Amino acid sequence: MKGVAILGSTGSIGTTALRVIARQRGRFHVVALTAFSNAALLASQAAEGKPSFVGIVNPNGGAPPATWRVGTESLVEAAVRDDVDIVLNAIVGAAGLDATLAALRAGKRVALANKETLVVAGELVQDACAAGGGEIVPVDSEHSAILQCLGSRRHEDVRRLIITGSGGPFRTWSPGAIADAKLDEALRHPTWSMGRKITVDSATLANKALEVIEAHFLFGIPYDRIEVVVHPQSVVHSMVEFVDGSVLAQLGVPSMELPVLYALTHPERVADDGVPRFDPVAASPLTFEAVRLDAFPALRLGLEAARAGGAAPAVFNAANEAAVALFLDGRLQFAGIADGIAEALSRLGAMSGKDKVSLLAADAAARALIAKRAEAA
Amino acid sequence: MKGVAILGSTGSIGTTALRVIARQRGRFHVVALTAFSNAALLASQAAEGKPSFVGIVNPNGGAPPATWRVGTESLVEAAVRDDVDIVLNAIVGAAGLDATLAALRAGKRVALANKETLVVAGELVQDACAAGGGEIVPVDSEHSAILQCLGSRRHEDVRRLIITGSGGPFRTWSPGAIADAKLDEALRHPTWSMGRKITVDSATLANKALEVIEAHFLFGIPYDRIEVVVHPQSVVHSMVEFVDGSVLAQLGVPSMELPVLYALTHPERVADDGVPRFDPVAASPLTFEAVRLDAFPALRLGLEAARAGGAAPAVFNAANEAAVALFLDGRLQFAGIADGIAEALSRLGAMSGKDKVSLLAADAAARALIAKRAEAA
Repeated sequence: MKGVAILGSTGSIGTTALRVIARQRGRFHVVALTAFSNAALLASQAAEGKPSFVGIVNPNGGAPPATWRVGTESLVEAAVRDDVDIVLNAIVGAAGLDATLAALRAGKRVALANKETLVVAGELVQDACAAGGGEIVPVDSEHSAILQCLGSRRHEDVRRLIITGSGGPFRTWSPGAIADAKLDEALRHPTWSMGRKITVDSATLANKALEVIEAHFLFGIPYDRIEVVVHPQSVVHSMVEFVDGSVLAQLGVPSMELPVLYALTHPERVADDGVPRFDPVAASPLTFEAVRLDAFPALRLGLEAARAGGAAPAVFNAANEAAVALFLDGRLQFAGIADGIAEALSRLGAMSGKDKVSLLAADAAARALIAKRAEAA
Repeated sequence: MKGVAILGSTGSIGTTALRVIARQRGRFHVVALTAFSNAALLASQAAEGKPSFVGIVNPNGGAPPATWRVGTESLVEAAVRDDVDIVLNAIVGAAGLDATLAALRAGKRVALANKETLVVAGELVQDACAAGGGEIVPVDSEHSAILQCLGSRRHEDVRRLIITGSGGPFRTWSPGAIADAKLDEALRHPTWSMGRKITVDSATLANKALEVIEAHFLFGIPYDRIEVVVHPQSVVHSMVEFVDGSVLAQLGVPSMELPVLYALTHPERVADDGVPRFDPVAASPLTFEAVRLDAFPALRLGLEAARAGGAAPAVFNAANEAAVALFLDGRLQFAGIADGIAEALSRLGAMSGKDKVSLLAADAAARALIAKRAEAA
């Protein structure tokens, strides 16, 4: 019986994880829950699961129960508890970094839905794994697919990772139309139901850049051997090409049930009827298209930041987070997201990324730059 | 450096294997070659590869070199040689059985392209593996795909095998038009270039029944958990659904280079540039259709024979081999293949399959029945 801490339990991944664990109650039990600010849902989850630890980052002026921990520190507290074997990190954005590092240093498995952690500080995370004996298992459907395709093979056997992406709601739009896209259009994702921030990232395709960086650090594959291909049906979740030319793919209905389950059970598989059944005839046809880097500048910028290394990925991520938040608030045009990222990378991309202090400085500088652009507009 | 015996070296799989081994000459070398009757090509292969053993089953009245072994016995002789580590059995039809059994009893790896071996005598083959410590690795693209998708997983982790098939040249034809199909139409396979017998099997879809039986014995999966789905592009070579609902697929351009290579190297993968590169965009779209059992009675009969067990699969296979030979000779209509199989199964399907003698008796009876039908027609 493994104890699970769910960081971000009231979000899309968090609620999926609670369903998965309820189905697998002989194997896993929830010992800690944290949420950002949704106290009502968190209270109901806590009443249901009776975890030994409940934390809320920002009670928004409300009065949480006296037994709850309050504030950002609650994330790390939950992550390092002795009764926790697996930390499901489903926090949105770079705020998830400290909990990931602490959990890895404490030797935990981190089921990582917070890809920004690896984007901002991939090398620090690798160091934390090495120091504490922890391990990262991805929750993103693409990286879960790659992990499953790799099986027990060494990364020397890999020729190429092929990360698929739906192409988002603007896959077929002209660059001009995309630049003028409205918020409600960006939030209308064709295949996946997800949180708002990641849904916008899936419209700009910034998400695919984050995933390329995540894959690089998770699987130790150089950037020139990671490709992105558009697959509008979101059925082939990603592919691995091996050195002998063989390609393995993982397929399924677009649903996070399996990636969350597999992140808990890896390398084992357990019987589970809650994962939607895959029917190849119903899923047919499956199509693939080249990605249009000219129409999706946020992706192009993210891939350039990845190759540049240093603090550039952190700057890319922070500028994107800040710009997407403004876009979600109606304070920025869609095209302004990529414009802000471009300016941030141009001005700050060469900052040092040698340690956590440097990376957080780059992150803060990028956020400040985006805020300043918004005020000037 | 592993020694390879190629049984059936002048056929489609045999010549592919010689190309693969030439590319991988540091790992494998050819020590034995046998062919059915193509002495000219065999002589040229022998001059090139300088194997220590050359055998020809039927020199057709010609005078083979004195150093060659002549006759059916040459197959078993090649298979059990001390300098042979891997026997690539690419013989067409049930004639491949003895060599497979002998090689397995001698502890060799059998790279099996001769699926009829497992169809006729699946249990005997399993016994031979257990007795001699040999192992079977499939060469069929579908079974190679399944083996690759399984990786190191146990068969208890498998919920379902999904064997794909192109649907053959008559995929979209009406049952009436299929019944009247001509030889040249049956030999025009849409995606694969193969030998004549297997190409006709791919037009009747008898081939898929043989593959279902082969998969049953190779992977230990019950028939009710093996499905056939039509996939006209022949890019997804087969799929495995696991107990947690995840599906893995192996993909590639239709080519036997990889399945032959992987049968030699399994479970390792080795770098090889001779396997055509897979490009998902070029391969798009990938479609899947339900198989039309009403239009392809040979498949339906084969699946029924599989479930019946005993000698029924051997009867199915022998009747099919004999009927296809007549069809290739222009002495039988296309519809006559399934009609002959149906009569053979109806009259002989309940024969005993308890040992090799019984199975060979059933095989002979089915061939005799098909011959008699042809004479009567």
